[in-house]
Amino acid sequence: MSDATRIDDLPVRDELRGKSPYGAPQLDVPVRLNTNENPYPLPEPLVERIAERVREAARNLNRYPDRDAVQLRTELAKYLTRTGHYPLGIENVWAANGSNEVIQQLLQTFGGPGRSAIGFEPSYSMHSLIARGTGTDWISGPRNEDFTIDLMAAERAIAEHRPDVVFITTPNNPTGNAVPPATVLALYEAAQAAKPSMVIVDEAYIEFSHGDSLLPLLEGRPNLVVSRTMSKAFGAAGLRLGYLAAHPAVVDAVQLVRLPYHLSAITQATALAALEHTDTLLKYVEQLKAERDRLVSELRAIGYDVIESDANFVQFGRFADSHAAWQKILDRGVLVRDNDVPGWLRVSAGTPDENDAFLDAVRDLKKELDA
Amino acid sequence: MSDATRIDDLPVRDELRGKSPYGAPQLDVPVRLNTNENPYPLPEPLVERIAERVREAARNLNRYPDRDAVQLRTELAKYLTRTGHYPLGIENVWAANGSNEVIQQLLQTFGGPGRSAIGFEPSYSMHSLIARGTGTDWISGPRNEDFTIDLMAAERAIAEHRPDVVFITTPNNPTGNAVPPATVLALYEAAQAAKPSMVIVDEAYIEFSHGDSLLPLLEGRPNLVVSRTMSKAFGAAGLRLGYLAAHPAVVDAVQLVRLPYHLSAITQATALAALEHTDTLLKYVEQLKAERDRLVSELRAIGYDVIESDANFVQFGRFADSHAAWQKILDRGVLVRDNDVPGWLRVSAGTPDENDAFLDAVRDLKKELDA
Repeated sequence: MSDATRIDDLPVRDELRGKSPYGAPQLDVPVRLNTNENPYPLPEPLVERIAERVREAARNLNRYPDRDAVQLRTELAKYLTRTGHYPLGIENVWAANGSNEVIQQLLQTFGGPGRSAIGFEPSYSMHSLIARGTGTDWISGPRNEDFTIDLMAAERAIAEHRPDVVFITTPNNPTGNAVPPATVLALYEAAQAAKPSMVIVDEAYIEFSHGDSLLPLLEGRPNLVVSRTMSKAFGAAGLRLGYLAAHPAVVDAVQLVRLPYHLSAITQATALAALEHTDTLLKYVEQLKAERDRLVSELRAIGYDVIESDANFVQFGRFADSHAAWQKILDRGVLVRDNDVPGWLRVSAGTPDENDAFLDAVRDLKKELDA
Repeated sequence: MSDATRIDDLPVRDELRGKSPYGAPQLDVPVRLNTNENPYPLPEPLVERIAERVREAARNLNRYPDRDAVQLRTELAKYLTRTGHYPLGIENVWAANGSNEVIQQLLQTFGGPGRSAIGFEPSYSMHSLIARGTGTDWISGPRNEDFTIDLMAAERAIAEHRPDVVFITTPNNPTGNAVPPATVLALYEAAQAAKPSMVIVDEAYIEFSHGDSLLPLLEGRPNLVVSRTMSKAFGAAGLRLGYLAAHPAVVDAVQLVRLPYHLSAITQATALAALEHTDTLLKYVEQLKAERDRLVSELRAIGYDVIESDANFVQFGRFADSHAAWQKILDRGVLVRDNDVPGWLRVSAGTPDENDAFLDAVRDLKKELDA
C-alpha cells in the first residue's frame, strides 16, 4: 500500500485533527531519568518466580483469564491494608492495564459526553488526555506559583464549574509535592456540595512520600477513589498494572464499562509474583527516597530552585529557557523531562551513579548559565 | 466499609443505571463449550519458550515497555503476509489488549459522541457494547432469517442512517457463517457513498474459515480495517492480544487515542513466543475445523437445524425455548452459549471427547423434546 493518504484524509473525529500521539521521547541515552521509572531491575529471585508463575498460567492460556481477577485483587487489598493503615478487601479493589486504564474506566463511568472533570495544573497530563479520549470536558484548575493548591481558588473553581470528576494528584506529578490531607478533605466537601461529584486521588507515587496514604479517608466517603500503580514502587513499569481502592459500589460500577477479560492471565500471574516480593521491593523504595532527598539538597546547594518532593522525582529550575536547558543536559548524556512547565524541569531519582552523572551535568550547566 | 451505597447511589452516567456487566457465566462444568475457546492447551515447548521470553522481559520490567511494540507488530505483519496472501508491513499493523481494545480505539478515533456505528445483528455483541462505552450511537442493522446479510436491506440502512462506522463480522459470531467478499465490497462502497465511513471487518475467527481472509481488499481502500485476535487460532484467549491491519494512516490515527504503553512488556514477549510456534498452532486449527464439520453433520443427522459454519463454533436449533434447552444441556454437564438469539444456541468446537459428550447430551435432549 503506497498511496499518500494521511490521518486527516480519514474520517477521524474533528478534535483529533492535527494532534500528535502522547509520549516522552524514547531516546537511547546513557542516563535516562525522564519517565520516573524505578532504576532498580527486579531482583533475580523475583524474575525466576515470575517465569514460574507465567509458565503455570501459560499451560491454561487457551482459556480466558479470570475476568474478575479474584486472587490478584485479594492480594492487592492485603498490600493496601498492610501499608495504608486501613482495612480493605477484594470488594474495595479493582485492577486494570496501568492506572491510565483505571482512570479511563472511571471517566467512562462518571465522566463522558456532557460531563466535565477538573484537575489542578500542572499535574499528570494523562488526566486531561484521557478526559478528551472519553469525551469528558476538561477544566484546568489553578495552582499557586509554588505549585501548592490554592484551596480557596480551587473551591471557587469547583463551585463555579460543578465538575462531575475532581482529580487530586498527591504526590503531584511533575512537581513532586504532596497535597495536605486537610486540603483533600476540603475539596471533597466542596465537590459534594457542588454536584455531588467523584473525587479521584491519584497516589501513583505515594510509596515515596514522607507522609501516609489517604486510604483512611475512604471511610464513609463513597464518592472518593484512590488510584495506585505497580509501575513505580514495585519497579514494574513494563507490567502495566494499575489499581484503585474505593467503596464496593465504585468497584461494581466500573465493571459496567470495563472490557470483559481486560486483564490477561499473564499480567495477573506476573503481578501476583511481584506482590510476593513486596518487602524486598519496598527496600528499594527506601533507597530511592534517600537518593531523592540527596537530589533535593544537592540541587539546592548548586543554586537551583527545587520543589519539596514526596515522589521519586524532583522538579528544579528556574531556567529562562527550560527547553534549551533540557537539551544542554541531554548533550551531557542525561535525559530529564521537559513537561512544558515554563522555567522548570523534572528529574527522576536514579541509582546513586546515575544521580551523580545528573548532578555533574547540572553543576556544569549552572556554571555555563551563570557565566 | 459497611454502608449500603449501591451503584445507582453514585453519580454514574444515566445510561449505566440498572445495567449489569457483560460476560458469559464462568461456571465450573466438566465440558465448557460456551466461549469459543480453543480446547487445546499450548504445546509444552511453547509454554517453555513463553517462560523464557518472559524471564528475559522481566529483567527489564522496571522500564516502560516499547510503546510502539515494534518487534511484535513486525512479526504479526509477517504472519498476515504469509497466511493472508497480501503483503503487509509493521506500518499496517496495530496491536492492543484483545480485539475489544482494538475496537474501542477505533471507535474512539472514528466514532464517539455525535457519531454512529452500525452492525448487522445478531453479531458479536461487544461491538454495540463498546459503542455505548465510547458514546457512539448504535444502529442495529438487519439480517435475513437464515442469518445471511440481506445486501439490499443493508445498503438501504447505510444510506438512511449514514453511520460513521460499519461493522462486518466474518465469519459471523454467534451464527458462524462467513460474509461473501462481494457483499463486503458492496457494503464498503455503500458506506463511502453515504458518508464516507470506516468499515471494520472483524475476522476473529478467519483462520477456521473454508475461505480466505479479506486482507487483499485493503488495497486502495484506506477506510477499511481488518481486526484479528490471537485468542482463537493461536489458542491464547488468556493472553488478550488483538490486532488490526489497515492503511498506515489508520495505524497513525489510533495512536492519537491509545493509552501510552498500553501493551505490557510481558504481553509482547508472550505473543512473540506464540508467533514462533505458528505452524504447530495452525495444525490444531485444522483439527478443530474437522471437528467443527463433524458437529455440523452430526447435529443435522440428529435432526437439528444448523447454520453453515466457517468458525470454531456452530449455531444450532431450533428450540421453542432456547434458554430452557440451554439449561437441559447444562444439566447434562455441558455448557453451551445462549446468546439471546431466540430459538438458537451456540456450541464451540472442543476436543473430540468434549464434542462426543456434547453430541450425547443433545441427542438425549432431542429425544426428550420429541417425546
